[in-house]
Amino acid sequence: MGTFMDVHHGFQGITNEQLREAHEKDLAHEKSEGVHFERAWADPESGVVYCLSTAPSADAVQRVHEKAGHRADEVHPVPVTV
Amino acid sequence: MGTFMDVHHGFQGITNEQLREAHEKDLAHEKSEGVHFERAWADPESGVVYCLSTAPSADAVQRVHEKAGHRADEVHPVPVTV
Repeated sequence: MGTFMDVHHGFQGITNEQLREAHEKDLAHEKSEGVHFERAWADPESGVVYCLSTAPSADAVQRVHEKAGHRADEVHPVPVTV
Repeated sequence: MGTFMDVHHGFQGITNEQLREAHEKDLAHEKSEGVHFERAWADPESGVVYCLSTAPSADAVQRVHEKAGHRADEVHPVPVTV
């Protein structure tokens, strides 16, 4: 298992409720892939969303996001943390 | 005070020790700007680093990073979180 940060673009104007709904869709699909989405942060002005997860692989992270209907633009393993 | 995510590029090969040293430089400079750097995540392969902070403004986040010697490429307010 590793830690991953993924990035989505195009979410200009996203609200807390919309981010929570998107996160709940991820949570609904994550178990089959062994992924857990921990937190997410969004900038409604630029439309960028960052999601932090623990997962067996970047592909597994992407598969959960695809099942939830919002494919990520980038998925980065982030093994180096403070 | 708000929450900010900033992004640095070009840190290919960064180690846990190097990230910790960079983070400690931020901590050494953050008080004068009312910023607190909470966590950071790095992908040594692509060289991207994400830093999570609480701060009075994006400019304050950038000033701390500049004083620490590593200007961010992007600083995003992330008022929407889960």
